[in-house]
Amino acid sequence: MNTMDSRRFNLTLLCAAAAFGLPVIAAQPGLRVNGARIADHLTALSQYGRNPQGGVSRVAYSEADRQGREYVAGLMRAAGLDVSIDAAGNIIGRRAGSDPTLKPLMTGSHIDSVPEGGNYDGDVGSLSAIELAQTLLENKLTTRHPLEVIVFANEEGGTIGSHAIIGEITDKQLNLVTNSGKTIRDGIKFIGGDPEKLANARRRHGDIAAYLELHIEQGGYLDNEKINIGVVEGIVGITQWEVKIEGFANHAGTTPMSQRRDALLAAAKFIQAVNQVVTSVGGRQVGTVGKIQASPGAYNVIPGKVVLGLELRDLDATRVQMFYRNIRAESANIAKATGTTFEFTETNNIVPAPTDQRLRKLIDETAKGLGLSTKWLPSGAGHDAQEIARLCPVGMIFVPSIGGISHSPKEYSRPEDIANGANVLLHTFLKLDIMRIQ
Amino acid sequence: MNTMDSRRFNLTLLCAAAAFGLPVIAAQPGLRVNGARIADHLTALSQYGRNPQGGVSRVAYSEADRQGREYVAGLMRAAGLDVSIDAAGNIIGRRAGSDPTLKPLMTGSHIDSVPEGGNYDGDVGSLSAIELAQTLLENKLTTRHPLEVIVFANEEGGTIGSHAIIGEITDKQLNLVTNSGKTIRDGIKFIGGDPEKLANARRRHGDIAAYLELHIEQGGYLDNEKINIGVVEGIVGITQWEVKIEGFANHAGTTPMSQRRDALLAAAKFIQAVNQVVTSVGGRQVGTVGKIQASPGAYNVIPGKVVLGLELRDLDATRVQMFYRNIRAESANIAKATGTTFEFTETNNIVPAPTDQRLRKLIDETAKGLGLSTKWLPSGAGHDAQEIARLCPVGMIFVPSIGGISHSPKEYSRPEDIANGANVLLHTFLKLDIMRIQ
Repeated sequence: MNTMDSRRFNLTLLCAAAAFGLPVIAAQPGLRVNGARIADHLTALSQYGRNPQGGVSRVAYSEADRQGREYVAGLMRAAGLDVSIDAAGNIIGRRAGSDPTLKPLMTGSHIDSVPEGGNYDGDVGSLSAIELAQTLLENKLTTRHPLEVIVFANEEGGTIGSHAIIGEITDKQLNLVTNSGKTIRDGIKFIGGDPEKLANARRRHGDIAAYLELHIEQGGYLDNEKINIGVVEGIVGITQWEVKIEGFANHAGTTPMSQRRDALLAAAKFIQAVNQVVTSVGGRQVGTVGKIQASPGAYNVIPGKVVLGLELRDLDATRVQMFYRNIRAESANIAKATGTTFEFTETNNIVPAPTDQRLRKLIDETAKGLGLSTKWLPSGAGHDAQEIARLCPVGMIFVPSIGGISHSPKEYSRPEDIANGANVLLHTFLKLDIMRIQ
Repeated sequence: MNTMDSRRFNLTLLCAAAAFGLPVIAAQPGLRVNGARIADHLTALSQYGRNPQGGVSRVAYSEADRQGREYVAGLMRAAGLDVSIDAAGNIIGRRAGSDPTLKPLMTGSHIDSVPEGGNYDGDVGSLSAIELAQTLLENKLTTRHPLEVIVFANEEGGTIGSHAIIGEITDKQLNLVTNSGKTIRDGIKFIGGDPEKLANARRRHGDIAAYLELHIEQGGYLDNEKINIGVVEGIVGITQWEVKIEGFANHAGTTPMSQRRDALLAAAKFIQAVNQVVTSVGGRQVGTVGKIQASPGAYNVIPGKVVLGLELRDLDATRVQMFYRNIRAESANIAKATGTTFEFTETNNIVPAPTDQRLRKLIDETAKGLGLSTKWLPSGAGHDAQEIARLCPVGMIFVPSIGGISHSPKEYSRPEDIANGANVLLHTFLKLDIMRIQ
């Protein structure tokens, strides 16, 4: 947003409140969510797909997922929302606004988990969005914009529910087998959607006024620095490559060290090089080799072939390309030194999704107004917000993850941090309601 | 062998020849095997389990193995040998000697292959041993010692046939599932042995006068240096460890580089350290990391756990221990630097099996007497000879492997090199025959 836009935006905020002659709900500074209720709902939701050793395996389209969804749909109804399931299986709870000309403000998250995941990733944002509706209901507040609370389907398996909303699910995706054992197509049916009518779930640019999502950080910045609220600058771009290293498989007993073309030794040098390149300059970029396969894979055979997975993430796509170029250069040196060849195939490329700069400022001001400290940071994880950013301005609010642990039974966020986040969500929402955001 | 032993041995050789008043067969310097016939037999044997892309998959106890064994048993009978199958499935072809007080001289190898193996490993020694018998038959020569030509069963799956001969097969081993899909127990039955009567296959110390084995080098020393014959100093000891590295699995997008405890990064440093330690001093030791598994194994999760296989080989067990100690020290440094832990479990330990020093000298002299160049070297690969070394003096003769390639369809040894090896085997055998080796 340039300076002119910034001035116009502030003006719009003030004029809108005045022009409609409505009570400026945002000015109710004492309004608070019920943090204890969110905590209770988190505990209740954690029973669906609970693992004996802690945490939850509530993978999308599983029976646990279906039951968890029924539970949250019940909470939505209790919060006065009009609940429906769209064709992609997203649960949508609607609440009317006072101005029929306005598009809805949307907020939510997801409740599906990774296998052996935790009880905060997605759940916090979903239950806080429902708490927002409950708070409005209990305080008999009517907003100008309609409200849509959304629980997206299958976030962990590739933001499938939100991807359907932007109308880009392919037949190939529908046929993918998920962690539930079902294809996405069958999974969508299982949770009450209709994979043949996905077009009905689609929203167009302008159909939604703005989208807000509260989420746990899943990283360690906020917890380390004792910050209350993360103002998310955007969701990083993710590029993944399959890297194939070819050497020569040979007898591990009879082949002298000097005559080996060991693909695993080359891979070892490569993994170190990735780490070196990514940490050689400042910034929040990350680079990971998370999977590896060495063939033939026996104690007594020099590996002739290694296939590994490389992933780079940064908020700036040009920096991802810069790191990639440097890694390629290192791999050429390693290939030469080890008598191997490297082949890179890009298998995934998600472009960075910056959040709306006006919403960042609004979240920041709102948090500070509530006496909370803030830090601007990128989201290293993907979220449904990155899909919805294609349709409307989006804002994301982070609360601390203790120890930065996520996708693990050890994932934890303190109730008071969650309540802080939910209050920032509530007041940002109320301020947005009196703005002309689009 | 000390100096006194050496003198006594030479004296024995001379006296034995004189004392018995027999024609000194070893003095027939013009006697030669039929190299072309060995080559023809190698080609014929290569049809059993032949792979379309070259090489052979004649894994022990497979149908191809069974048929290949029938073929070589036929060659044995044609060479005048009295063929039987022992309880372990070893094929033994016997030929009587002139002195009933003498124990047999044994020579042979194996014909089973690794999956997608080549046509020389084992086959060369087996067919050359049969050619030795054929040469004796055609030249109407009767040796003093009985001759036993042996084709050991299942060498590639853990020298099972020869291990049975030393009487050390366990029930646990019998229940192992082999590459044929059968357990060793069922495999032994399939090839005509009797796993319930393995005690019948057992030989005691002193039951065999000496054992000779001709084999391809499977390494690159002879080929690189254009040497005709390798005099094997012994079969290296092999120690294997499972190495478990524990870090902490976390989200690859949200976990800052500085906060990671990446088990795969630690493994990468470890693999390089193994290579460094093993190549830091001169010698023919080898160290290999041949297998690796990273968990959970996804593009977007920092590996929390890695399990890999470490193998060290040397002719001197104290050197293996020295390398291992240095590797352990390096791993402690890596653990500290990466926030991981290392755990080592020894999974296999085969002690080095030196060949008989008198036989080394005899092979060396015999080869030189035939105008061939020699090099003394260890065998980096395991062989049936290492088992039989527990019962009697053993000697091993190597012929060059082109490019040092083995356990591969590209494995190749030249017919002339094989013929040289078979002639060294023949004349070493004939010299041994007039010695009192035990």
